[in-house]
Amino acid sequence: MSDATFDPMVFRNALGTFTTGVTVITARGSDGNPVGVTANSFNSVSLDPPLVLWSLAKTSGSLPVFEEAEYFAVHILSNEQQDLSNRFAGRGQDKFKDLDVPNGLGKTPLLADCCARMQCKTAYRYEGGDHIIFVGEVIDLEHSNATPLVFQAGKYALASRKVDETPLLSSENDQNSAFSEDYLGYLLWRAYFQFHTMARKQASIAAYSDLEFLVLVTLFHSSERSGDDLTAAMSYEGSVQDTASAIENLVAQELVQPLGTKSRLKFSLTEQGREKTLGILAAAKSTESEFLNKLGMWESVALKNLLKQFITETDPGLPHLWETAANSD
Amino acid sequence: MSDATFDPMVFRNALGTFTTGVTVITARGSDGNPVGVTANSFNSVSLDPPLVLWSLAKTSGSLPVFEEAEYFAVHILSNEQQDLSNRFAGRGQDKFKDLDVPNGLGKTPLLADCCARMQCKTAYRYEGGDHIIFVGEVIDLEHSNATPLVFQAGKYALASRKVDETPLLSSENDQNSAFSEDYLGYLLWRAYFQFHTMARKQASIAAYSDLEFLVLVTLFHSSERSGDDLTAAMSYEGSVQDTASAIENLVAQELVQPLGTKSRLKFSLTEQGREKTLGILAAAKSTESEFLNKLGMWESVALKNLLKQFITETDPGLPHLWETAANSD
Repeated sequence: MSDATFDPMVFRNALGTFTTGVTVITARGSDGNPVGVTANSFNSVSLDPPLVLWSLAKTSGSLPVFEEAEYFAVHILSNEQQDLSNRFAGRGQDKFKDLDVPNGLGKTPLLADCCARMQCKTAYRYEGGDHIIFVGEVIDLEHSNATPLVFQAGKYALASRKVDETPLLSSENDQNSAFSEDYLGYLLWRAYFQFHTMARKQASIAAYSDLEFLVLVTLFHSSERSGDDLTAAMSYEGSVQDTASAIENLVAQELVQPLGTKSRLKFSLTEQGREKTLGILAAAKSTESEFLNKLGMWESVALKNLLKQFITETDPGLPHLWETAANSD
Repeated sequence: MSDATFDPMVFRNALGTFTTGVTVITARGSDGNPVGVTANSFNSVSLDPPLVLWSLAKTSGSLPVFEEAEYFAVHILSNEQQDLSNRFAGRGQDKFKDLDVPNGLGKTPLLADCCARMQCKTAYRYEGGDHIIFVGEVIDLEHSNATPLVFQAGKYALASRKVDETPLLSSENDQNSAFSEDYLGYLLWRAYFQFHTMARKQASIAAYSDLEFLVLVTLFHSSERSGDDLTAAMSYEGSVQDTASAIENLVAQELVQPLGTKSRLKFSLTEQGREKTLGILAAAKSTESEFLNKLGMWESVALKNLLKQFITETDPGLPHLWETAANSD
């Protein structure tokens, strides 16, 4: 029994501030059945010999197999493997259903596409309260550059490396930190403009104004739209008049065509417009790749993740620019 | 000796894909001297009794103290405590210099301002290759809401929770993923516009055009600037003519005053302009707080961190809007 005077929930919450990766650990029973559990209690122990450890609840149905098994495999999961984490975290009977699991050492079932996979020989089993601590010697390992899945405060997460504390601006006389380099409005504006400026240097994009660009791309994704609908979609980029004149220019260049009668006028891309827009999209994609390469893949995944979160949680109901216009009739 | 056939560096790299928090673990020797080491080999073991573990190299100078000590304290470090992590990661003699460390159980030195602090009674010491595994029973604990410091692939990092996979846009007929919700250019634009739109709803900001707003804030941070200098700083927001007319409007409202002779004309804020700008800055700050509260503190720290990284690593040399104009003469 514990001497502790704190609530178990408080203990859980405190432990949650220690960030971890997520692993799935597998083994095969003497009856030939595979077992697997999700664990974030993994960690490294020793470099020479190469040892790692993890803990398993004494109440786990898989305990007998792990206690008997000569080998087990640790799979450090990637960002793409959240489903695997959920699958093996449950108490389900058929965790391996429809999974392709080749056999490793001791016929241990192996999962693919992880950040790292370590095949281990059980070295020690230690007493650990309501858990058993397993220490394994790593016999074989593989690893990839996949973005690691992270667990923090009871939720899945992503990690991104910290920037140096070097200031972005040399603001010796900065009198008010509200508008310094730490101001979110400035950071968002600056990041957007750097991206925008670079994208507009691409010849196939530079040929069109921002509004023409947006009209082309919107039509590319929604086949046809009314003028009102296009104006509404552009309402954060230009006035009604600006949008009308952008459409007019594109019609004059035979990239966009009017459809229907005057009272139900719609616009769509011409074949030529479709081709030009494909070029624009390729150029946009190449600008994005350039930026993401500079930032690094793990950070890119984390940045997009955070921007989506930011957009979702602070959405005042802006029009969805490229949304399909199902209700535009 | 190890059976392993892989390079120790490969092992290290594979382990690096398992993300961890960072802890400093302290104890006091029987001679009264405090010891402390940085460790990311920490993890939870058991809930009842509450047990945690960590490993220490057999070559560590602090090992004899930890082997003798009845108590040790685990400090899960926050984002603000990177310096502490570096300090205790070294082999320095005087790691506690200038630190205020009250005594805990067994006179264990305690560090402040961590994400969590656990005072432990040594429960087990286990063999672990070139390390010793320490298992402690948690006797006392505290925790805070500070943003946790993270370690991944050999670098300090920050974690942010993953968004649901719910799409931002309902794009049933989305034919090209390049311009879908996953396009960085769209995400940056959208995040910036949501922020901008909300900020402009504040009365004290809405009274001025975007350019007037930027002129006021730039002058607030740099006392005086020439017209050319202001135009250059605004070059991503407006034309030379637009900027000149924004300055003219602000002079007419007696918020900005011209200084010097016509050939060396500069502009600065009037007393009234300064007051109005303080109001603008307060409103901007309040918009920021509103957004950051919606996103959550840990995610806010991570988002700003990533945007700074993005800006630094993809900077094409844009003017620094609010930079002090040291060379503007």
